[in-house]
Amino acid sequence: MKKVKVYVTLKESILDPQGSAVKGSLEKIGYGEVADVRIGKFLEVTIADTDRDIDTIVKEMCEKMLANTVIENYRYEIEEA
Amino acid sequence: MKKVKVYVTLKESILDPQGSAVKGSLEKIGYGEVADVRIGKFLEVTIADTDRDIDTIVKEMCEKMLANTVIENYRYEIEEA
Repeated sequence: MKKVKVYVTLKESILDPQGSAVKGSLEKIGYGEVADVRIGKFLEVTIADTDRDIDTIVKEMCEKMLANTVIENYRYEIEEA
Repeated sequence: MKKVKVYVTLKESILDPQGSAVKGSLEKIGYGEVADVRIGKFLEVTIADTDRDIDTIVKEMCEKMLANTVIENYRYEIEEA
């Protein structure tokens, strides 16, 4: 078994309205020092032992489904579970 | 300036229908080895220099707004930006 941690973030050039809303709300409740908030996804994917190359299938899953590579970047870490 | 990375995950005991849906879809497109998917949030919060203790304000922001501590866990890393 492998545990894969996938981090999906919006590309720098893409506006993040959800992040802006959270920043505005944090300011309102007294955290004016917050300069920026960007919100992404954090996925924990557990993968059973397989003959296929784990790195290849994780990359494929990210490209095909977990991230929208037009507007998002992704990175991942593979750990023994 | 500090860059804070906040990871918000559903507690173990809480069902994750979004994760289950992604798992099902991954199976359908040929990734039957996927045993589990859990989906959380990954926030990048940039904080301007302040006299307040950074660790304290990050913890407060997580408890008050960024995480719902009834159903979610959070952890964070503070980096110099």
